[in-house]
Amino acid sequence: MKTEIRILKRPTLKEPRLVGGLPGSGYVAKLVVDHLVKETNAELFAEIYSYSFPPQVMVKEDGTIELMKNELYFAKNRGNGDLIILNGNAQAVSPEGQYELSDKALDFVKELGVKTVYMTAAYITGEHVKKPKIYGTATDLASLREIEKFGVTIMKEGSITGSNGLLFGLAKQKDMTGICLLGETSGYIVDARAAQVVLEVLAKMLDFKVDMTNLENKAKETEKLLKKVEEMERRAMEQQSGFKAPPIKKPLEYIS
Amino acid sequence: MKTEIRILKRPTLKEPRLVGGLPGSGYVAKLVVDHLVKETNAELFAEIYSYSFPPQVMVKEDGTIELMKNELYFAKNRGNGDLIILNGNAQAVSPEGQYELSDKALDFVKELGVKTVYMTAAYITGEHVKKPKIYGTATDLASLREIEKFGVTIMKEGSITGSNGLLFGLAKQKDMTGICLLGETSGYIVDARAAQVVLEVLAKMLDFKVDMTNLENKAKETEKLLKKVEEMERRAMEQQSGFKAPPIKKPLEYIS
Amino acid sequence: MKTEIRILKRPTLKEPRLVGGLPGSGYVAKLVVDHLVKETNAELFAEIYSYSFPPQVMVKEDGTIELMKNELYFAKNRGNGDLIILNGNAQAVSPEGQYELSDKALDFVKELGVKTVYMTAAYITGEHVKKPKIYGTATDLASLREIEKFGVTIMKEGSITGSNGLLFGLAKQKDMTGICLLGETSGYIVDARAAQVVLEVLAKMLDFKVDMTNLENKAKETEKLLKKVEEMERRAMEQQSGFKAPPIKKPLEYIS
Amino acid sequence: MKTEIRILKRPTLKEPRLVGGLPGSGYVAKLVVDHLVKETNAELFAEIYSYSFPPQVMVKEDGTIELMKNELYFAKNRGNGDLIILNGNAQAVSPEGQYELSDKALDFVKELGVKTVYMTAAYITGEHVKKPKIYGTATDLASLREIEKFGVTIMKEGSITGSNGLLFGLAKQKDMTGICLLGETSGYIVDARAAQVVLEVLAKMLDFKVDMTNLENKAKETEKLLKKVEEMERRAMEQQSGFKAPPIKKPLEYIS
Repeated sequence: MKTEIRILKRPTLKEPRLVGGLPGSGYVAKLVVDHLVKETNAELFAEIYSYSFPPQVMVKEDGTIELMKNELYFAKNRGNGDLIILNGNAQAVSPEGQYELSDKALDFVKELGVKTVYMTAAYITGEHVKKPKIYGTATDLASLREIEKFGVTIMKEGSITGSNGLLFGLAKQKDMTGICLLGETSGYIVDARAAQVVLEVLAKMLDFKVDMTNLENKAKETEKLLKKVEEMERRAMEQQSGFKAPPIKKPLEYIS
Repeated sequence: MKTEIRILKRPTLKEPRLVGGLPGSGYVAKLVVDHLVKETNAELFAEIYSYSFPPQVMVKEDGTIELMKNELYFAKNRGNGDLIILNGNAQAVSPEGQYELSDKALDFVKELGVKTVYMTAAYITGEHVKKPKIYGTATDLASLREIEKFGVTIMKEGSITGSNGLLFGLAKQKDMTGICLLGETSGYIVDARAAQVVLEVLAKMLDFKVDMTNLENKAKETEKLLKKVEEMERRAMEQQSGFKAPPIKKPLEYIS
Repeated sequence: MKTEIRILKRPTLKEPRLVGGLPGSGYVAKLVVDHLVKETNAELFAEIYSYSFPPQVMVKEDGTIELMKNELYFAKNRGNGDLIILNGNAQAVSPEGQYELSDKALDFVKELGVKTVYMTAAYITGEHVKKPKIYGTATDLASLREIEKFGVTIMKEGSITGSNGLLFGLAKQKDMTGICLLGETSGYIVDARAAQVVLEVLAKMLDFKVDMTNLENKAKETEKLLKKVEEMERRAMEQQSGFKAPPIKKPLEYIS
Repeated sequence: MKTEIRILKRPTLKEPRLVGGLPGSGYVAKLVVDHLVKETNAELFAEIYSYSFPPQVMVKEDGTIELMKNELYFAKNRGNGDLIILNGNAQAVSPEGQYELSDKALDFVKELGVKTVYMTAAYITGEHVKKPKIYGTATDLASLREIEKFGVTIMKEGSITGSNGLLFGLAKQKDMTGICLLGETSGYIVDARAAQVVLEVLAKMLDFKVDMTNLENKAKETEKLLKKVEEMERRAMEQQSGFKAPPIKKPLEYIS
């Protein structure tokens, strides 16, 4: 196992907070972070490589490849401080890789002054909903009381797996505060609506504005997609009387 | 792989014995140890973290999270010495992780003066029984003769997998004595009755008293649950003549 | 994990380029490289061993065994420089093993003066074709413009897994250029025709000649095999009216 | 990963040869080595532990446990030199563990003077035979010519997986000679007959005598078992006309 942080530029940051999200169920976390990077014109300053990422390269639209990696961006003066954004195209595939990467990434951002980590994730229900709720959990009770003010429903059970869980959870061991915001999603589609809800709350919490137009457009596409899925399911049920089509298990399309 | 022992407090102990049990079949071992920690008012003094634990965080009832970890508690003056209790919410998921954690945990408690390790586990039979038997095995014949006096049936074959096996087995390599007490269980339910039987014998062996009321109540709940299961199975058989319902494979409920 | 490069001879090379291919879908990459080693009379100068290779030995036709390994050969004065060829009978079975091996192999050939890495791979379509196309991707746009001149179709999406992907992809991190050429193949057979197409383009790019006779003969065998498969599939369909035989999932035969 | 060799006694040996066999298909290799240890009154002098062994303890007939381990024994003056015997109750479960253990074990016995390694294994055919053939492979042609003299059929293809393959295969990298003798077996039963055939040839090669009585008795039990299996299969076929019972996949019984 080997995790390497390649520093492209070492920014000087004021009261930086980390916001992160890595590919997972419904791509909720990744959609949030992709949008945030774009809308804040955040600047890439470090890349994280791990021997535990899927052993492959991905071909981009321009024909060149990219390696599996996580990325750190910064955006200055967003609300009451600067912002560090953790994005990525992969999660480590082994427990050891997940822990090592989260551990090292947190040590690195702590050095840069981060005191609070906001991770995003999906809250999977198996049901399509029109207005996704936003759920939250944290490393401490004070943070829970804080996020409740923004309409976040506090979780009472369950687990958050992978980097989106470890990156705020391990903050506890490092005397940092960790918060996780989860958008309600069926888990069956790439869910831009859930991402939108998460990002709106996150922006309010961190006291800065994000243009939501692009994410809203994606959310509308998500909803059209959903209607198609439901129509297909309805027809399947009519044709095969007595047989209920099982929910579709994989993302139908990644609207990026 | 990385195992880390975080020492919160370094207790001075007199003739300490280690009693341990980690989540496994029927949650027998965990129930024993949870109860023991509570009833002896044992004090947490060290946490063990491993990169080989499941990569996730768990949400507690109060909305905050806990990391996957093992924990060491102590309780002074229980019978003929002090007690160290090993509890935890997870086992390592790889062989390498299991061995490393058991190895390091034993080295640590040996330093604290432990000479005998008592691990607990489930003895799975696939059958529901009213009065679970208690089985035992050990690293040496003298210990077997000793535990036989307490009504323990000595095992003659089989294997004990995971940390509940390694933590007393590896004691052999470190010139410590290892004993394992196993409560008979079907393996299909969270079995408080089996846990109760194990803890009663353990308390007698170590010559101290534990209030069993809570565990007895849980055991009664287990029995009610069992009756329901049996009733369901009986009905399923009646309705589908000739067809016997297969045993239920997963714990129905975790009565905690 | 342990990767070891055993150097048998340290050649002095002029403008060396690396050409590589390891066993994968349709054995396309391996066929290219096997043929190239033979026809250029390339000399073995280093062997690469990894603890992450399949834990086994393979029996050769003469009754002796060979270990799982990758091999580096050199051939002088092929086109506008010397050639290093990476061959092998195995790929690492874990992500960590794949990354470590690719990382170390690239460091080693960089030391020997390699600036450009050409990997080969299969482009799987699930359909049998008479004239396989050749696809390509690279670490940079300039290389894409270059390979387009040789009739290579530039990929726009997808991923290349395993060593055939990492060995040119990681070149990017090491200030080397990486190019991957992929022969179109169904993925169901050992496809010498696809290998032939790749090697022809590769030879043109690197400006040297390779006798294709043996590979052409193998390609003809591939085609005969294909006709048999298609005939079998046709009959299966006729006999079981309404039932379409599923595509054959495994290589039918390895024509070596 | 961690492999540890615990040396109980460091013997001075004359022309030692290593004979080894670890649990695998048909328990052929283990039966050979178990018998050899017993009949030569070989003395245990080293134990090998690995974090990659199955994470468990096994209960012995006397009620005490044993850890997963490999063992090295020696027996003096057997034929034209001394004998080192490698036995064990487990193989490592990961490729990395398999390679590391084989690598370290060979380094250790090389230090003790071993120049030739004889491993044993099963040659699986899927068919029950009355007179199992003995197959062989080696690291070099000279050894093949040598073992042919003892009626060994030289293999021409296939692979030998796990420690029984690596332990003689890696000998090649260490300037030692490696030979593997494989007893023909169906693979469906614990096959003492196959073990007997291997041990007889091995004893002739190394020029010493072994009392075969116990192994012959086991072989007779194997044959009785085989007859029962065949009778069962025959009946199953008669009862379900047109339906052939599939071969039994797991060892029916371990006659130890």
